[in-house]
Amino acid sequence: MRASYHEALTGVVDDLGAMTDRVQRAVDGATAALLEADLDAAEKVITDDDVLDTMHDHVETRCFDLLARQSPVAGELRTVVAALRMVADLARMGDLAKHIAKIARMRYPNQAVPEPLQSNFQRMATLAEEMVGIAGRTLAERNILDAEKMADDDEEMDDLRASQFKSLQDDQWTYGIQSAVDCALLGRYYERIADHAVLMGSRVIYIVTGMQPEGENWTIA
Amino acid sequence: MRASYHEALTGVVDDLGAMTDRVQRAVDGATAALLEADLDAAEKVITDDDVLDTMHDHVETRCFDLLARQSPVAGELRTVVAALRMVADLARMGDLAKHIAKIARMRYPNQAVPEPLQSNFQRMATLAEEMVGIAGRTLAERNILDAEKMADDDEEMDDLRASQFKSLQDDQWTYGIQSAVDCALLGRYYERIADHAVLMGSRVIYIVTGMQPEGENWTIA
Repeated sequence: MRASYHEALTGVVDDLGAMTDRVQRAVDGATAALLEADLDAAEKVITDDDVLDTMHDHVETRCFDLLARQSPVAGELRTVVAALRMVADLARMGDLAKHIAKIARMRYPNQAVPEPLQSNFQRMATLAEEMVGIAGRTLAERNILDAEKMADDDEEMDDLRASQFKSLQDDQWTYGIQSAVDCALLGRYYERIADHAVLMGSRVIYIVTGMQPEGENWTIA
Repeated sequence: MRASYHEALTGVVDDLGAMTDRVQRAVDGATAALLEADLDAAEKVITDDDVLDTMHDHVETRCFDLLARQSPVAGELRTVVAALRMVADLARMGDLAKHIAKIARMRYPNQAVPEPLQSNFQRMATLAEEMVGIAGRTLAERNILDAEKMADDDEEMDDLRASQFKSLQDDQWTYGIQSAVDCALLGRYYERIADHAVLMGSRVIYIVTGMQPEGENWTIA
């Protein structure tokens, strides 16, 4: 009984890994849609999000079953509880990638991001995608050092966002209102993807140590 | 033992109720800060958010303890799992109210929201606050009809947001870039507060029926 339980739990963690890969591809696709005005990429991210939602429901149901039938304790209980949160993080990151793709689709064939902010968004997107990858590896390898490293990435993310806001000052921005609004929301979506990646890292730290990490970076609810 | 367990669970639900009251006051305060350029109200929302975060940690710890020590099943397990999610929803709504208050503080003594959008934001804020109230009552009274009613409010919320975007068209907006960016983000924050209220309602439906409600309104992860 315990062996099959252990197997079920491993299956959940594997599925979270597969969802993380999908989220990483979604972020990548959304960025291609956005920065290359690639309509096919946008449509694909929007359609594929349904798969992520289905995976979410599936993992969630299995976590509930594990809690109800097996009454796990200690490390195993922590893993199930953390899995329930990670699956919510991953579904949310998928939604955010979809929001980005939808803005790209709405502005097609134009570029939603004007030229002076393209490199800023490119860097933001690369960081966000990397952070999702680190979160996935942290989970797969239970390597909390990786998770702790994400704090630096998150700081760079904040700097990039601050720099966007600077570009969006009244006297500097010559690309119109709509484009400023798009950029403000797009920046928010990438920032939230990064936040959820950091949170995923904190869930792994919780599995391994039993403690929630302290500090501003970990407390984004 | 079961009696004290039941008591502990009731305590958790009571604390969620107290948190909901606080969130409602936070949304109310943030709106006063925003629409009356009330700096004291803004500072209070920003400072008080720490209390919500502390309450979050406290409720979360007790839910973990309940899972680890009592191995609840059926309805009680559902309540603990739903409580873990509701406490995350509530902490997040508090954060969003804080974001609104921070924009109000940043623009003080000016108004962040220009006159033509004030009534739109007033209605959005009233709706968001009402929805938080409905979510709280739904939880306290286990009345899922209330929760289902929130779908209508959420639809009005979407309409208000769409109307904001219409006002933010290039040729209609004469209040500058910064103010357009503020309004786009403020609208997003109120919308997300409403989303989390709907989610809280869906958690109560799950406690009562054991089923997650279907449909677009309930699947915002």
